[in-house]
Amino acid sequence: MKKTDSPKQDGLGRRSALQGLALLAASGALLPAAVRAQGVGTVPLESWNEGRTKQAILDFVRAVTDPAGPDFVPVEERIATFDQDGTLWVEQPIYTQVVFALERVPALVARKPELKDREPYKTILSGDRQAMARLPARDLDEIVVATMADLSVEEMEAETRKWIASARHPRWNRPYTELAYQPMLELLQFLRGNGFKTYIVSGGGQDFVRVYAQQVYGIPPEQVIGTAGATKFAYGKDGKPYLTTEPRVLLNDNYAGKAEGIHLEIGRRPRLACGNSIGDQQMLEYTGAGKGARLMMLVMHDDAGREYAYGPAQGLPDSTVGTFSQALYDEAKTSGWTVISMKNDWKRVFAFE
Amino acid sequence: MKKTDSPKQDGLGRRSALQGLALLAASGALLPAAVRAQGVGTVPLESWNEGRTKQAILDFVRAVTDPAGPDFVPVEERIATFDQDGTLWVEQPIYTQVVFALERVPALVARKPELKDREPYKTILSGDRQAMARLPARDLDEIVVATMADLSVEEMEAETRKWIASARHPRWNRPYTELAYQPMLELLQFLRGNGFKTYIVSGGGQDFVRVYAQQVYGIPPEQVIGTAGATKFAYGKDGKPYLTTEPRVLLNDNYAGKAEGIHLEIGRRPRLACGNSIGDQQMLEYTGAGKGARLMMLVMHDDAGREYAYGPAQGLPDSTVGTFSQALYDEAKTSGWTVISMKNDWKRVFAFE
Repeated sequence: MKKTDSPKQDGLGRRSALQGLALLAASGALLPAAVRAQGVGTVPLESWNEGRTKQAILDFVRAVTDPAGPDFVPVEERIATFDQDGTLWVEQPIYTQVVFALERVPALVARKPELKDREPYKTILSGDRQAMARLPARDLDEIVVATMADLSVEEMEAETRKWIASARHPRWNRPYTELAYQPMLELLQFLRGNGFKTYIVSGGGQDFVRVYAQQVYGIPPEQVIGTAGATKFAYGKDGKPYLTTEPRVLLNDNYAGKAEGIHLEIGRRPRLACGNSIGDQQMLEYTGAGKGARLMMLVMHDDAGREYAYGPAQGLPDSTVGTFSQALYDEAKTSGWTVISMKNDWKRVFAFE
Repeated sequence: MKKTDSPKQDGLGRRSALQGLALLAASGALLPAAVRAQGVGTVPLESWNEGRTKQAILDFVRAVTDPAGPDFVPVEERIATFDQDGTLWVEQPIYTQVVFALERVPALVARKPELKDREPYKTILSGDRQAMARLPARDLDEIVVATMADLSVEEMEAETRKWIASARHPRWNRPYTELAYQPMLELLQFLRGNGFKTYIVSGGGQDFVRVYAQQVYGIPPEQVIGTAGATKFAYGKDGKPYLTTEPRVLLNDNYAGKAEGIHLEIGRRPRLACGNSIGDQQMLEYTGAGKGARLMMLVMHDDAGREYAYGPAQGLPDSTVGTFSQALYDEAKTSGWTVISMKNDWKRVFAFE
């Protein structure tokens, strides 16, 4: 449980003075000066090595919070947006939500037997991992949409909550929620401590990420933007209204869709944006095109020992997930974006290390 | 300028200790106890007459903020959603945004001369007010969408800002922004002071309302949900990316669309919802269907002297805008919703009275 924008309470009547202080300190609306008092006893960005990357973050935050400086940004305009998969937590060997969706295919086919002999369902039911690995991205998208549809949003939330609590990553044999990058958690906290509202802008499902974003990242549901299906309002047999997820994408929160999603759900251009793949390119470009001080960052996966190494920009093998292309690397250099090297910039990758 | 969730600063270096306190007090993440200290020197809901309606609000807020009580709601779940037109400000004789759209028709036709002889543009260009008054709602919707499209979101924002600063309501000859209901502004402030995040959920255009919501209601753009057009990401001649509004509705934030929009952009069910017409029915039903303490309210326009009187539920003439039908009135009674009588419950309607 990290410091949060709006932490859950332990229970009735147990809100202590200390909790009160933590709430005050974690509020995005606080004055930087007041918030910095929170830092007593904690070291900001302590899992980051000294160097150009950490310095770029510190310089940017100092510049936008200095009321006497030319780059000062009023607190309400301090919006920071983060991609999730590969930026805040592990995305290899396959996106977590896709794992969830694949495991839901048998139940879907049981409900809709006509899918049994149709691709991509047939391949998935075969259990042939090599064939599954060759499925194109649009097939995986279809599976995600199909396996999340036709449930009430409360049912979907409950099923997601149950799954995320029990699923384990094959490499570390730990819950996916423990595979958030410790330096990024510290960055989120540091930004909130300096008046930023932190948002997730994920290509993954909005409703999926919202289930655990508060617990893992300290980011409340209303600050999670992601690929979103349409919902349909209807009345149950008891006359009570409910919302059902529909198998129809309303917002495809990838590529250009990330800039469009930010406009739709925030309505302000971010001051800081961080991603790790070509799906984040337009979000960073859109952020960088605004006036005044902005910080654009890309996480580079170059640490096979502690995490994974992939991406042609570093002469590493490409990956079907999280492509960090040579063109994106070149654009980062040309545009003055900060490239975060997991290997060189992070003292540790996970909290459990 | 009202107390706000995240007020604009006067300027560089002018942030005073008093401003700091105001910011602290206005933060939605604060403890109720800490926030109540803000109330010193101010009377909450001072423009509300004593009576059942005011008491229902006070009782609800006391119940959900009492950590020892059975109806306590953690601060992060205190979401309050308000319709705008007819709930927070005047909607008669015609929705403000439609006035704006109608005034933009000549410029649209100049750009697209083929519209000149097509309805509804022909009627609007004729200047025949009686014929215009007979245009069906879907024609007005078409005009709103058409006149807001094909501009960059920044251009649209600038044009809206300019118009809203200069336009005047025909009855009071005052800016529309002065026609916000003073009791509702006090209610928004009272809720924020008790840890609520206040949202607008408007059938009007999301981008339109966002322009002035901070200044008028103390509600930042990211807490404004409304009917939203799709946007399109593209690169300008200078290589810089920009977003253009498209003539295609992504979210029709009316009727069932209000519940769907709340799920899309907040992801939590409101604890309090307030509207004034059949377009708000589903939002109130969705709010009421949640577990625990909830407050649903409807503003009844029964004050022809100070504002307007319309709605068959009170034997008043119906209106093409803001229909408060007999069926809605009956549902309010059956469901225990609170009906706010402008005439009886409000000491004054506007700040300038």
